[in-house]
Amino acid sequence: MSGKTAEERLERASAWWSTSIIDIEPGRIAVRGYPIEQLIGSLRFPEMIWLMLRGEVPSAAQSRLLEAALVAAVDHGPHAPSIAIARMAVTCGLPLNGAMASAINTLDDVHGGAGQQCMALLASIADAAGADEASDAVVGRVLDGFVAAHGKIVPGFGHRWHGVDPRAVRLLERVRAAEAEGTVSGRYARIAQAVERALQAGKSKPIPMNIDGATAVIYSELGFEPALGRGLFILSRSVGILAHAWEQTQQGGRIKGPMSPEIPYRYTGPPLRDLEPRAGAGG
Amino acid sequence: MSGKTAEERLERASAWWSTSIIDIEPGRIAVRGYPIEQLIGSLRFPEMIWLMLRGEVPSAAQSRLLEAALVAAVDHGPHAPSIAIARMAVTCGLPLNGAMASAINTLDDVHGGAGQQCMALLASIADAAGADEASDAVVGRVLDGFVAAHGKIVPGFGHRWHGVDPRAVRLLERVRAAEAEGTVSGRYARIAQAVERALQAGKSKPIPMNIDGATAVIYSELGFEPALGRGLFILSRSVGILAHAWEQTQQGGRIKGPMSPEIPYRYTGPPLRDLEPRAGAGG
Amino acid sequence: MSGKTAEERLERASAWWSTSIIDIEPGRIAVRGYPIEQLIGSLRFPEMIWLMLRGEVPSAAQSRLLEAALVAAVDHGPHAPSIAIARMAVTCGLPLNGAMASAINTLDDVHGGAGQQCMALLASIADAAGADEASDAVVGRVLDGFVAAHGKIVPGFGHRWHGVDPRAVRLLERVRAAEAEGTVSGRYARIAQAVERALQAGKSKPIPMNIDGATAVIYSELGFEPALGRGLFILSRSVGILAHAWEQTQQGGRIKGPMSPEIPYRYTGPPLRDLEPRAGAGG
Amino acid sequence: MSGKTAEERLERASAWWSTSIIDIEPGRIAVRGYPIEQLIGSLRFPEMIWLMLRGEVPSAAQSRLLEAALVAAVDHGPHAPSIAIARMAVTCGLPLNGAMASAINTLDDVHGGAGQQCMALLASIADAAGADEASDAVVGRVLDGFVAAHGKIVPGFGHRWHGVDPRAVRLLERVRAAEAEGTVSGRYARIAQAVERALQAGKSKPIPMNIDGATAVIYSELGFEPALGRGLFILSRSVGILAHAWEQTQQGGRIKGPMSPEIPYRYTGPPLRDLEPRAGAGG
Repeated sequence: MSGKTAEERLERASAWWSTSIIDIEPGRIAVRGYPIEQLIGSLRFPEMIWLMLRGEVPSAAQSRLLEAALVAAVDHGPHAPSIAIARMAVTCGLPLNGAMASAINTLDDVHGGAGQQCMALLASIADAAGADEASDAVVGRVLDGFVAAHGKIVPGFGHRWHGVDPRAVRLLERVRAAEAEGTVSGRYARIAQAVERALQAGKSKPIPMNIDGATAVIYSELGFEPALGRGLFILSRSVGILAHAWEQTQQGGRIKGPMSPEIPYRYTGPPLRDLEPRAGAGG
Repeated sequence: MSGKTAEERLERASAWWSTSIIDIEPGRIAVRGYPIEQLIGSLRFPEMIWLMLRGEVPSAAQSRLLEAALVAAVDHGPHAPSIAIARMAVTCGLPLNGAMASAINTLDDVHGGAGQQCMALLASIADAAGADEASDAVVGRVLDGFVAAHGKIVPGFGHRWHGVDPRAVRLLERVRAAEAEGTVSGRYARIAQAVERALQAGKSKPIPMNIDGATAVIYSELGFEPALGRGLFILSRSVGILAHAWEQTQQGGRIKGPMSPEIPYRYTGPPLRDLEPRAGAGG
Repeated sequence: MSGKTAEERLERASAWWSTSIIDIEPGRIAVRGYPIEQLIGSLRFPEMIWLMLRGEVPSAAQSRLLEAALVAAVDHGPHAPSIAIARMAVTCGLPLNGAMASAINTLDDVHGGAGQQCMALLASIADAAGADEASDAVVGRVLDGFVAAHGKIVPGFGHRWHGVDPRAVRLLERVRAAEAEGTVSGRYARIAQAVERALQAGKSKPIPMNIDGATAVIYSELGFEPALGRGLFILSRSVGILAHAWEQTQQGGRIKGPMSPEIPYRYTGPPLRDLEPRAGAGG
Repeated sequence: MSGKTAEERLERASAWWSTSIIDIEPGRIAVRGYPIEQLIGSLRFPEMIWLMLRGEVPSAAQSRLLEAALVAAVDHGPHAPSIAIARMAVTCGLPLNGAMASAINTLDDVHGGAGQQCMALLASIADAAGADEASDAVVGRVLDGFVAAHGKIVPGFGHRWHGVDPRAVRLLERVRAAEAEGTVSGRYARIAQAVERALQAGKSKPIPMNIDGATAVIYSELGFEPALGRGLFILSRSVGILAHAWEQTQQGGRIKGPMSPEIPYRYTGPPLRDLEPRAGAGG
């Protein structure tokens, strides 16, 4: 085929899968260059996550801040579609992997993308400010552009349930402590607070940062790409998804729908009618 | 590696993926040996499904019976977890493919496997009867073994919602008509009816065949393997999953949980407590 | 909560799930208003698909044209990621539903969205032309805008494997026959051919319609929304995914990777290195 | 319905979703009874995983041993179907959540269940031994029963790639250290070593513990249920799946199949043939 030699074609076949993450030979595994046996028992789990995603080992202080964000977002209860889906899936006969898959799949733009979108917004503001601190004018201008493009819901701010999100309050304390220790610059925290002020202007009540906003600040401070904001949220929420799938496994139940069967759903379609007789029909 | 020549290794690479279903060369596609352009516009969709799964084209009468079963099982409303999951997934931002995937995933042993399990049961009875018609004694014996192994819920019989499942009634009419025309033997329909009788014995009300039982009869009469009973059900129910995902797309909504947020879920865990101070904690 | 009565809250719970597709009461199922027992044995499977998605029963001629498109797209072999994934999934222990879910999930914008995108392009051109036939000038203008926004790959045209896609050739014959019979107007077929001409202009070889383009023409002629172009493709390709998953089930194999293990993948990361000793590490 | 009052039906609706994991009120979130703000910045991520799955906070030493297992299993490269699927999915247009879902779904009995199965085996042996140490006779007897029921592949032992799995060696060192500190009893490590000896008996080369066996020992020593062995493996491997999905996102590529397109797959079906003309066909 194509005049290539067998050697050349084998070379192409081999290059089809290429990675800088892991190197494996019989009896030897190296992750990002490090022998796996050096990592096991030495690296903290958040450090391993960082190494896998970014290629280098973080400082202990960076890892601790990442860890706070991972701990914060594990669960928000069975009213969240992802959690409900995991539980329903178990009652359909799925093992934990399948229940987790159906659930994690739904952590998409709307249910799992707010952190990523908030990181992208914070990055746009940082870019617009350049080397300077982001002024209220710069923040307002970028925010206006964002709302014009994406609508009035600004990801990372406000919560339909919590007036003040206790997770965000605590996470922002951790950012301030990390800034005081020199672990992070605090630039993205200040930008996010400027967004909070801008959103509140002229409103009767504040629209404070929520869990997505606070974790977006942390991941941005730590230098993660916005797309990884979604990835890290998934790693965190997977813990909640697993815990609920496991609890449902223990509770039992079969083919559990979204509501008790005695609560009917509402039918809004056409009233009962007859099918026209059809030529050649089997009946 | 391993002393193989490049040619031998290429050969191994090529053999890694092997199929009898489809052959493709530039400008030419053949399915089960037939040029695709001969199939398009000639084969009915159920005939194409049969060809893909079994390698040969069925008769028109076989295809019509298969089609009746595929039409019957498309939907059973949003109380079914698969349908609810598809709708919830759409409100999380998923496109139709993702919503369908999370939903189809849950058509597992409990939610999508009853037809397959019923086919396996009917096949066991047919095997036990051998060349004869299955007597009530043979049916009773196999059924007792099934209940001992799998519990009292016999897949394909009884419905928690419908006393009589109108889909099953109509499908069994179609089987009888197909038997009268010589399309099928009717052996599996008779076995299923014997199971019905056995299940009713000593009960105050009947436990009639449901949609899974009636489609199991049809797929068995048509010679499908039990495992494909699940596969055909998935092809059918995918239509309902798609229709509901699409309706939800048009309805809109964001991060729709299983119940209205004003219906609280029930918390059954420990009361509020304080975390013990932890050595080395970041707080 | 919120001062609502229990009756009002129940009403809200019930309205949380609302659908015009299916109405169910004990012993009675109606789809789009039709009793299910009237549909079984009367409607063809493509007619049922149409009824579920659009609320009304199509004519037999419309159904036959839809069917041709559904037959055409069922499979393109194991080099397609969706097919390979279904087969790999089976060797990991997944049942057919799980293998189909992992595979269908990947029929996203790039792998499953070309038909939908082509339909949207054809609709833009039709809108720009208004009541008139789309002139080459209008086609060129809309196409330029499309390329400026989305890049040079125009969905539905050209194929990396087939110079001429035999499925498209045959499907377009069916559209012409349907136009001759008055089933469709042929407007979208003419627009797509004008796009073909525009794409070929100044090129040494044609960039003819592929399967996605030809099915996009059919679905557009039949009045489907672009989003449903993806949905219909999924229903079609699900047949191939199921057939390959089933063939792999019969072939057996455990944890089948993408390539024969003797074809190594390529490692491009850092060379072997030692982890710095870490304070407080467990090792 | 059913003569229930609206209040009773609302109560049923509420009880439909019940959990002991998380309690939420506006402005307040408690996980297993602990206010979330006390957990953030205090609990390590593995401690949070443990709390979510088991309801209580582990000791620091227990958490460190769990962490070693979580670090060890994150990745085994793109020859693993789950990793390849994540990468292929990205090239089909899926975001990280979708790629992770398709991949995690495949961590089923064969690809993700070995640890769980090994834990169940170790537990059977421990049960058979009762209060005593498991003698070689007891181990041999339970093992014989296992092989009779499940076949000759004993999950957790032997590796098709690694003669000695460096991850297992290191993890078992950590178990011994934890035993020396009194964190674990070492009972399951001793049982697993007895299984190793039994498997080697009469063989020319050893069949040592692999990553699944070593993590099974750790999770068993820490008191996790076998089913959670699979869950914990998924949390660990999700990191690798995310890292590879992200790397593929950065590499780009469109609709990446399992092998370079110039490596053909093998067709084993019927030779080219013509479709019989069909009555009533549209062509």
